[in-house]
Amino acid sequence: MLENITSPEQIKTFSQHEISQLAAEIRRTIIDAVGHNGGHLASNLGVVELTIAIHRVFSSPEDAVIWDVSHQCYAHKLLTGRYSSFSTLRMKDGISGFTNSEESPHDYFINGHASTSISSALGLLTARNALKKSGRVIAVIGDGALTGGLALEGLCHAGQLYKNLIVILNDNQMSIDHNTGSISRYLSRLTMTAQYQSFRYNVDRLISRIPYFNRFFEKFIFRFKRALKGMFLTNNLFTDLGFEYVGPLDGHNEAALEEVLKKVRKLHRPVVVHVVTKKGKGYKPAETNPEKFHGIGPFSDADGEPESGGKLTFTENFSSLIVRNAEIRPELAAITAAMSRGTGLYEFSRRFPERFFDVGIAEEHAVTFAGGLSCGGMIPVVCIYSTFIQRSVDQIIHDIALQKFPCVFMIDRAGAVPSDGVTHQGIFDIALFRPVPDLAIMSVSTASDMRVCFEWALSAKSPVAIRYPKAECPPDYEEFSAAAVPGRGIFLKGSAVAGDERKYNEALRKVLVVSTGGMLSEVCEAVKSASRVGYYSDLYMLRFIKPFDEDYFIHLASRYKGVLFVEDGVRTGGISEHLNSLLLEKKHFNTSVLAFEDKFYPHGSRKEILESAGLSPEHIFRHIIKLLK
Amino acid sequence: MLENITSPEQIKTFSQHEISQLAAEIRRTIIDAVGHNGGHLASNLGVVELTIAIHRVFSSPEDAVIWDVSHQCYAHKLLTGRYSSFSTLRMKDGISGFTNSEESPHDYFINGHASTSISSALGLLTARNALKKSGRVIAVIGDGALTGGLALEGLCHAGQLYKNLIVILNDNQMSIDHNTGSISRYLSRLTMTAQYQSFRYNVDRLISRIPYFNRFFEKFIFRFKRALKGMFLTNNLFTDLGFEYVGPLDGHNEAALEEVLKKVRKLHRPVVVHVVTKKGKGYKPAETNPEKFHGIGPFSDADGEPESGGKLTFTENFSSLIVRNAEIRPELAAITAAMSRGTGLYEFSRRFPERFFDVGIAEEHAVTFAGGLSCGGMIPVVCIYSTFIQRSVDQIIHDIALQKFPCVFMIDRAGAVPSDGVTHQGIFDIALFRPVPDLAIMSVSTASDMRVCFEWALSAKSPVAIRYPKAECPPDYEEFSAAAVPGRGIFLKGSAVAGDERKYNEALRKVLVVSTGGMLSEVCEAVKSASRVGYYSDLYMLRFIKPFDEDYFIHLASRYKGVLFVEDGVRTGGISEHLNSLLLEKKHFNTSVLAFEDKFYPHGSRKEILESAGLSPEHIFRHIIKLLK
Repeated sequence: MLENITSPEQIKTFSQHEISQLAAEIRRTIIDAVGHNGGHLASNLGVVELTIAIHRVFSSPEDAVIWDVSHQCYAHKLLTGRYSSFSTLRMKDGISGFTNSEESPHDYFINGHASTSISSALGLLTARNALKKSGRVIAVIGDGALTGGLALEGLCHAGQLYKNLIVILNDNQMSIDHNTGSISRYLSRLTMTAQYQSFRYNVDRLISRIPYFNRFFEKFIFRFKRALKGMFLTNNLFTDLGFEYVGPLDGHNEAALEEVLKKVRKLHRPVVVHVVTKKGKGYKPAETNPEKFHGIGPFSDADGEPESGGKLTFTENFSSLIVRNAEIRPELAAITAAMSRGTGLYEFSRRFPERFFDVGIAEEHAVTFAGGLSCGGMIPVVCIYSTFIQRSVDQIIHDIALQKFPCVFMIDRAGAVPSDGVTHQGIFDIALFRPVPDLAIMSVSTASDMRVCFEWALSAKSPVAIRYPKAECPPDYEEFSAAAVPGRGIFLKGSAVAGDERKYNEALRKVLVVSTGGMLSEVCEAVKSASRVGYYSDLYMLRFIKPFDEDYFIHLASRYKGVLFVEDGVRTGGISEHLNSLLLEKKHFNTSVLAFEDKFYPHGSRKEILESAGLSPEHIFRHIIKLLK
Repeated sequence: MLENITSPEQIKTFSQHEISQLAAEIRRTIIDAVGHNGGHLASNLGVVELTIAIHRVFSSPEDAVIWDVSHQCYAHKLLTGRYSSFSTLRMKDGISGFTNSEESPHDYFINGHASTSISSALGLLTARNALKKSGRVIAVIGDGALTGGLALEGLCHAGQLYKNLIVILNDNQMSIDHNTGSISRYLSRLTMTAQYQSFRYNVDRLISRIPYFNRFFEKFIFRFKRALKGMFLTNNLFTDLGFEYVGPLDGHNEAALEEVLKKVRKLHRPVVVHVVTKKGKGYKPAETNPEKFHGIGPFSDADGEPESGGKLTFTENFSSLIVRNAEIRPELAAITAAMSRGTGLYEFSRRFPERFFDVGIAEEHAVTFAGGLSCGGMIPVVCIYSTFIQRSVDQIIHDIALQKFPCVFMIDRAGAVPSDGVTHQGIFDIALFRPVPDLAIMSVSTASDMRVCFEWALSAKSPVAIRYPKAECPPDYEEFSAAAVPGRGIFLKGSAVAGDERKYNEALRKVLVVSTGGMLSEVCEAVKSASRVGYYSDLYMLRFIKPFDEDYFIHLASRYKGVLFVEDGVRTGGISEHLNSLLLEKKHFNTSVLAFEDKFYPHGSRKEILESAGLSPEHIFRHIIKLLK
């Protein structure tokens, strides 16, 4: 069935029986593709009926459906002509795991960050009104994303502009983790009062029967109606903000959803349609354990167990580090923005619930709240992915650095991030944070390095950001156990990496490879390759990106024939650009910089992304040779 | 009276008559100081009684009072031992116009950006609880700041943590401009139902008389109470989020405020105290025209008319530019985040109300909403101060640049900002936005330059940011009327600035001064001084910071004996650092960079700030000579 669908218009004529069959086929296709390629499973299984209902009632692309975060867009992709390419999901040159306006006219935005849909949709609708274009605009947002300040700002503005925006609230009581915050508690309270709707319906009918007489009465009656509503009806958050409210509805009853959406389509006011769905619906392992199946790697279909290499990742290493330190430091607190598993805080949250704060998808508040904790004498550890901490730039400047508050930022998923694509690369953090005064920035290379850096940061009495990639910890070297000296990196003799100490010692000309921590594996591989063909190099790993001991570095670098910089962050504003100019200013060096270019990188494996950015071991190797020739 | 107050404890014993006298004295002192030094007037006059009541009921600094934005902290400063230094308000080395933890133990945070207080206060309170420290925490936030997503995130988290946080909502129906957004409309609806409080009080009394029998009944009665409340009482936004709600109260009745705050102090739950105040209270010109008296320069006390030089500022120039362009471009829309006057959009808002969007203090939404407008075919012009656009970094990356949406950012108050101090300098924008792919960045030097750049940006079909300082437009040169060529700056012969064309043409050795637009005045002054003592230099004004025509620039620079960079942004990640390294890489140049150092700059006049940063005409002059000697 699915393979013949090239346009969502086709499903409009389906019978209810065919719809059920279609839903089952969509689920099967999603489970297969995610089992094979990894991806977002639970959230996509939860919105199958909702997606079908939307596409049967509205006419995409003339009616614009804006998916918040858009990790739940798989059924939408399957119904809008992307079935045949669906097996390439999240693969290099395949289709994206998120909506992508370059992929289909049914996708209006390239999306990936949470809480943007109401603002985007409101803008689009406002422009259509102003330019007299037709078409409805529907924002589909999860209860998780609704906790974000941007979404709340959007709601307030939408309530004021009073246009016919349709907000479908996909309430699965989860963001990536179990949801928190008083809004989500509030939503479940709403859910418990389903009968309210029928009651309200009756009151409305009753009121509509009160006849109008003349102008005077009209005004009076209007007030009376309002008073009556105010008397009998529970206002809710959404009606307070100027929206109509319908719900809560069963998100897996396609026919009922359709019926309501048909009515909603006719409204000329902003409306929130509150739909309750079950994450992972239709796939037992995901229903039972939806956090695990939020964003996952390939898994075996039978039991849903991930196919894992099983080596220690940086995130896992951090997970035990913070627990160990919390045991001896009662003032240590941990904060996450809806990513307790993703950032490795799950164990901490179980052991120290009173010092664990999951603030929901609210990166701005996470940081300012941490500032308050720090002001009150605690040491907050804020754990956020590199791409999402872009949300907190002003708070890190204004509410942390300016106050010189001790606070540790654990920036996970820094550098190249596999599979999630263009919106999830962690390549801006160095450039964004290097200009922030009084903020120390560290990049860690190995598990021991992370331990030393984290413990140094906890004692630093000023703010520190520590970045590390979504990757396994590479083999350790004892050099990384050395105490942290502010401004200094870790020097690693090439022979420690590649062996053959005699030849290394005899080499008259060597390259110094200067690299951020996340690139250690790749750099070591390149150093080994070069050594094998008679070109030798030592390593200087940038434990400290800021502050930076320039004299020490220049002195070190001056002993080399050439210096090669390797940085897994944007070139513009990066540390390499700076160090390069430093060397050029002091001496006339033979230099070269490898870094991400100043552009967006689409999805692919970590290796593929590094390859396309000229940061692969092969590239590094060739540059070492070039500098020595 | 005021001059004898060194601690807020002293006013606790005052009689009601003395309190009135104190309030009058505070107002007089504030009007005098602001009339002399400039500052925030209307907001400070509005909270005199509230501040007195807070300090009579609570015990600062043990009880922490956190002022949101903190431009309304003048009465607080006067009551906490800063009367004697109050005449130095906003002057270099004088006291700050905002709270400053380095100034007094009664100030917990250095503040200046909006919507942070609830998050900060919640963090502080949580830490105090965890570390068993005593003292209440009170956040005072305006209805304007409450529209910010960060404040809403904070409210949600506070409702969930359910600690005894006190949020005083200072509702003056204004942010800097008249307030917008459905929250503020909602607040005025609350205000109209003042009688609700007494009604509620009676219901509560009634309920409390229902006797408890046994465990079974207890549960039943509890539910019944809830049902009764639900039936008779209007829920509101704050109770929905888990807060108690008291109000609205008359913010100028000190005795009544005290009475309520005394009760609130005893609560063990989060509470919102809704206080209605009048901006400018007690000073007629400010009561009548509070926007004008939000943040102002020195004025004559008698009529409140500003003492103005009257020369055209960049903001004023933009004000007419956008109106002129809107007349011929029906798709042009303007967006501001509560700064329609400050950004020069007042005239536009009157002429084109249907294309004008004041989204409230919601910089994130402003940008994402603009993305939606752009997606729908409009050309949004987003007008935000440099320091506040730090809030929108992720939205500019994710919701604009990534989508390559045509959108113009007018970054007002870029560079050194007079008087407002450390939180308001506009020095980070270049470093923060230079790494953003596909975003063009321009800096404008004169009124004609701004016209050319703005009109180029409107036609660019991709996002463009234009930065300019809070300053008068310097005298124009015809060179700035030249059409924009992407990547190229404006070359200005030194003789055009300093005269004496013959000597300039004969000079064998010259310096090229490369500068961002905002520094034109200062650079010209320096060039003239140098020319007077026989040292000649030409100018290259960086109309384009990004994209950048490097070959053209290197070719130009290679004709000079030395190159001097002048940039009114942070050195780290700035354009100068980059261009400097570019030159060093290509040729062995004799170079030097002047820029803000990588640190925070406290308040002072524009001239004083530039002086302390080594960016004064005198410094520039000395560097030109140094390069030629």
